[in-house]
Amino acid sequence: MPSWIDGQPGDALSVRDRGLAYGDGLFETIAVSRGEPTLLDRHLARLADGCARLQLTLDLALVRAELLGFARELGDGVAKLIVTRGDGVRGYAPPQPAVPRRILQGSARPNYPASNAERGVRLYPCATRLAEQPLLAGLKHLNRLEQVLARSEWQDVEHAEGLVLDTSGRVIEGVYSNLLLVKDGILSTPDLSRCGVAGVMRAELLAQAESMGVSCQVRDISIDELLAADEVLLCNSLYGVWPVTALQGHRWPVGVLTRKLQAIALDLLDR
Amino acid sequence: MPSWIDGQPGDALSVRDRGLAYGDGLFETIAVSRGEPTLLDRHLARLADGCARLQLTLDLALVRAELLGFARELGDGVAKLIVTRGDGVRGYAPPQPAVPRRILQGSARPNYPASNAERGVRLYPCATRLAEQPLLAGLKHLNRLEQVLARSEWQDVEHAEGLVLDTSGRVIEGVYSNLLLVKDGILSTPDLSRCGVAGVMRAELLAQAESMGVSCQVRDISIDELLAADEVLLCNSLYGVWPVTALQGHRWPVGVLTRKLQAIALDLLDR
Repeated sequence: MPSWIDGQPGDALSVRDRGLAYGDGLFETIAVSRGEPTLLDRHLARLADGCARLQLTLDLALVRAELLGFARELGDGVAKLIVTRGDGVRGYAPPQPAVPRRILQGSARPNYPASNAERGVRLYPCATRLAEQPLLAGLKHLNRLEQVLARSEWQDVEHAEGLVLDTSGRVIEGVYSNLLLVKDGILSTPDLSRCGVAGVMRAELLAQAESMGVSCQVRDISIDELLAADEVLLCNSLYGVWPVTALQGHRWPVGVLTRKLQAIALDLLDR
Repeated sequence: MPSWIDGQPGDALSVRDRGLAYGDGLFETIAVSRGEPTLLDRHLARLADGCARLQLTLDLALVRAELLGFARELGDGVAKLIVTRGDGVRGYAPPQPAVPRRILQGSARPNYPASNAERGVRLYPCATRLAEQPLLAGLKHLNRLEQVLARSEWQDVEHAEGLVLDTSGRVIEGVYSNLLLVKDGILSTPDLSRCGVAGVMRAELLAQAESMGVSCQVRDISIDELLAADEVLLCNSLYGVWPVTALQGHRWPVGVLTRKLQAIALDLLDR
């Protein structure tokens, strides 16, 4: 599988990179289909937002060109883009000027069971809660120990994903997915202004639902509201949409809007 | 300056390291004096605690032996030890078994102005607040974007350090230091069970103060209590102790206990 550093083939990184030292950077995980990156504009828009919030100066046109070239080489699979603040001397103060580093790693599409999409998934109730940090909320940054801890909570294959709450007990997301629910025809997804990762597939599905005339709400969601939902679904930019059918003793049916959004996601990822 | 990876000279790391991908690891920053690491037992004890909490299996006897060898090669300076969960495939789930990676980087002792220790420092009031995450609190882990953001808030040399509060407004620490205060003869330092880094010099100074018969308290501290303190001091394992003399318009004198602790720290770091 290919691996590029700053546009050149390579798989060795300086130990002085601030991505390693402090998680000082961002990433995007992009499905590549027939040599083309999917949802590219949304991935680049989120990256640009993250760069602005972390005060990282990045040549986004160059990143786009590299992603297109990398995807052609990869063919089909996953392109993971990591952008770090580059090498630093010891200490938290960012170097002035910093020279960001661009890392591209290829891998195969994850091999999830087909039943996840077809029949739906059971959520593991993670005990790991997400801390509330508005300065970093929504970003796909490299500080991901909370996700590592949450994903370490279960090993069985019966649970395809975990449900993660914030430290105040609000429903936030899956460990590697966003969560949406349908109640009385309204599509809702948790507000991610305190914690969580604002996924590109979530943004795309909200936009598509609105264009279909579905009311959409981004708001705080309690566990009781989740349990009372008519439909629950997960999404990310690799697998698209999975219906959620179970959380401990609770069951949800697979709903009509879930299937519509799933078809839209499939079309975007397999084009 | 020397750099070792898994005990061998080297300065290039696999781009698949989970330290880069997720900040999935820990670090220690160790002053090296005349070929010897200082406060070694305390650094290794904190590392062991961090490994236990992150479920990292590390050969600590091997790490100790490598640190001793690296310090001999370095002579005088700073040995930064990074331990990561090693290489991973894509996805948050830790590999089973994970093979942790040990990285050692040498650098010169930081060149702080002598007046920091002699006359004391002014604190910058950081707007960046620390999120409350008990699962990671106290650890010197690799998820340090909050510190990067806080340290980015000021560039002037009048402020040697920043004061960082948690999202509830409690006093926690400096950006790269712990904070202690003296009031009516009692030495107090913020409780770090929700956020913050439990520094080895802080632990050492608390132990030494108790052995001198000084009452010590680890507890929540408000900004009002900080302002009302008789003495305020910062510490870390590289510079030892700095008196704090100013925060915006407020002034503190340099106190007697501060000077005693400073002398103890100096002795530990320059032995």
